[in-house]
Amino acid sequence: MQAVELIRKKRDGGVLDTDEINWLIEQYTQGAVPDYQMAAWLMAVCWRGMDARETRDLTMAMVHSGDELHVRDIVSPVIDKHSTGGVGDKVTLAVAPLAAACGIAVGKMTGRGLGHTGGTVDKLESVQGFRPELTREEFIHILKTEGVVLAGQSADLAPADGKMYALRDVTGTVESIPLIAASIMSKKLAIGCSHLLLDVKFGSGAFMKTVEKARELAQAMVDIGRLAGIHTVAALTSMEQPLGCAVGNALEMMEAIAILRGEGPEDVSELCYHDVAELLVMTGKAQTMDTAEQQVQQAIRSGAGLAKLAAVIAAQGGDARQVEQPHLLPQAPYKVMLTSPHTGYIAAIDAEAIGLASMRLGAGRFRKGEPVDHRTGLVLQAKVGAYRQAGEPLVEVHARSEAEARDLFETLLACYRWSDTPVQPGALIHEVIRP
Amino acid sequence: MQAVELIRKKRDGGVLDTDEINWLIEQYTQGAVPDYQMAAWLMAVCWRGMDARETRDLTMAMVHSGDELHVRDIVSPVIDKHSTGGVGDKVTLAVAPLAAACGIAVGKMTGRGLGHTGGTVDKLESVQGFRPELTREEFIHILKTEGVVLAGQSADLAPADGKMYALRDVTGTVESIPLIAASIMSKKLAIGCSHLLLDVKFGSGAFMKTVEKARELAQAMVDIGRLAGIHTVAALTSMEQPLGCAVGNALEMMEAIAILRGEGPEDVSELCYHDVAELLVMTGKAQTMDTAEQQVQQAIRSGAGLAKLAAVIAAQGGDARQVEQPHLLPQAPYKVMLTSPHTGYIAAIDAEAIGLASMRLGAGRFRKGEPVDHRTGLVLQAKVGAYRQAGEPLVEVHARSEAEARDLFETLLACYRWSDTPVQPGALIHEVIRP
Repeated sequence: MQAVELIRKKRDGGVLDTDEINWLIEQYTQGAVPDYQMAAWLMAVCWRGMDARETRDLTMAMVHSGDELHVRDIVSPVIDKHSTGGVGDKVTLAVAPLAAACGIAVGKMTGRGLGHTGGTVDKLESVQGFRPELTREEFIHILKTEGVVLAGQSADLAPADGKMYALRDVTGTVESIPLIAASIMSKKLAIGCSHLLLDVKFGSGAFMKTVEKARELAQAMVDIGRLAGIHTVAALTSMEQPLGCAVGNALEMMEAIAILRGEGPEDVSELCYHDVAELLVMTGKAQTMDTAEQQVQQAIRSGAGLAKLAAVIAAQGGDARQVEQPHLLPQAPYKVMLTSPHTGYIAAIDAEAIGLASMRLGAGRFRKGEPVDHRTGLVLQAKVGAYRQAGEPLVEVHARSEAEARDLFETLLACYRWSDTPVQPGALIHEVIRP
Repeated sequence: MQAVELIRKKRDGGVLDTDEINWLIEQYTQGAVPDYQMAAWLMAVCWRGMDARETRDLTMAMVHSGDELHVRDIVSPVIDKHSTGGVGDKVTLAVAPLAAACGIAVGKMTGRGLGHTGGTVDKLESVQGFRPELTREEFIHILKTEGVVLAGQSADLAPADGKMYALRDVTGTVESIPLIAASIMSKKLAIGCSHLLLDVKFGSGAFMKTVEKARELAQAMVDIGRLAGIHTVAALTSMEQPLGCAVGNALEMMEAIAILRGEGPEDVSELCYHDVAELLVMTGKAQTMDTAEQQVQQAIRSGAGLAKLAAVIAAQGGDARQVEQPHLLPQAPYKVMLTSPHTGYIAAIDAEAIGLASMRLGAGRFRKGEPVDHRTGLVLQAKVGAYRQAGEPLVEVHARSEAEARDLFETLLACYRWSDTPVQPGALIHEVIRP
């Protein structure tokens, strides 16, 4: 087989067979196919796309490029949950322990933030001592003993994806539905859970700007799951405004704790409860969404969800007291309130712009490998649809200095659109795609 | 400027401005933009194309990447002639000296063959001692003293093209009209002649399989010429069957000599005479094609054309006696005649298949850098439209052994299609595109 033939085949709109895809990914991972040939092939994929079978084959070739954990052979059912990323998305921090408290094992690996979207690992690391890097044995052990594990992404799983993603990043070949779907799903399939719940975000703060594109990506991933034998459900959820109120690492950790106490903001709490209920139905732990929601509420009321978060954090070396007493989490030295310049209804809050503002406070990273400040960020005091009088609190800025906070005011105000008449925020969960 | 931004812009169907194209080619030539980014950009160009201004800019950026000869500042008018390559295409060997004999200076660089198409340098090297590699000073000197020079392609001219072509070859990005046009034209513009005649071939033996694709390429090159200020004319000519009768290096050299003696096969002779007449009109040396053709016939009858070929070969170190007495050219030890198995009219001769058969005799190269056997090849005894009785000569095979010749018979017979009713061969010159 020759790489140039496979490039030409895709360039001309052809469909690569399973052997061809396996060969290409194997040779590329080994370094026998050079980056320049892979780059040309990736651009040809951006151009011509891939059908469901090719996308499944690409995903599986990436899975087979490294270690596989096969966790469902150890614990079953065992679920995984993935969000395509947004601003203020702390859902995993609440859903994972809550699902575990409801009796579903959760084996999850998660990433760091880049650009305007945050990463679950960064948020967890706001807890003193928390250690995301686990060996395979530690991962399995914590999964078995605690019923939930929240590890950093292992470079030994789907290494072809890591290599290809680095190349895509610098060759303008990120924006391809089958490539995005295969990248995400390869890491999930390498862990090998039995059930997977995907949260595909759309809107200004999301990677997918439109619901149509989000649906396309969700369908591609559900198709891969179906063809690879993992029960996969995808929810399309809005990222037009930030999710919840907190944006920033420790701030989002605190909000996740509030959600587990039943005291979180309405939008993000409902999404978390819905996700856990969906997982209960998917795994047969509940017959209907209604009974599932009741189980979720029970885990909130009993404190079992919060206890599970404390337990998994402790198991991974973190200080569980910071979960029980969140005021012990690191806090920014300056909290400066931006008040509303308008009287009226909030018509829109630009999620991407809020995410970028939070980055400027040190809460996110512009480049891979940069450190983040776990303390800083923003707390929205009102969401879309709320009525504010001029002078009422709008955003609390958690910053390293007062000047840094005030410097951001103009940028923050530009994130808001106002209306004189009442505004109804759109539904958070747009639709759910099942296999 | 960032390479990934320029890749994305082209991927999304954008038009790159002059500065962007200059930057990209400059950085790539210097090695600051890596092959993998250029490969992705090239595939995006295959996908989205380039407009006439972008194609001109790409061409000029490639010209400026290396030395420029500016020959028209030394001799004017001075012409260049380029064929996109075919099977049995020895036109340059006859046209260049004939044009010079008619008083038009010819400054030409030419390449080696690869695959089923031959290269003019290989054909010239069948003459003992001929030296295609010339210094810049030698090139200019021979052009000034002989009025014609036939050098090998200098790597110092348009080095960006050499680097890009090597990359395109292994990344499936050869087949793009603007990239092909820019590649050809950059080498022509770096020489800097005043007039350029292009022979764009179409059909089975050509790179462009259809007349539509050939027209598109011809138009792109004529556009570049117009925008770059070089008077460019392109003829679309058929490569459905081999051009002339000889296929192979010394064999084609002999046929070129026959053309210059007025004794060549009708099709290729007419094409050569037409090309020279076109050049005479382009450069104002003749007012009409009719008077131009008369000048050409005079140069044939007087032997001036043949004398010019001998002179340029001598000037470049070759043995001119082999031009005057072509039986002194190297000859294959075995000449085996394949006779016609049919009685009927020849309906088609597959040019590409004939070219590949000739390669198998050693006359062509499968990979760059391989040597060729100058002696071997094929001489067609009849062309499309001819009537053959079974047993009459069809192809004379010039081979290194009788077995090698006979092994090719089946392959050669498969190149022919036959008809019981008379067949009219298509016109050789399909159309001429002028600026």
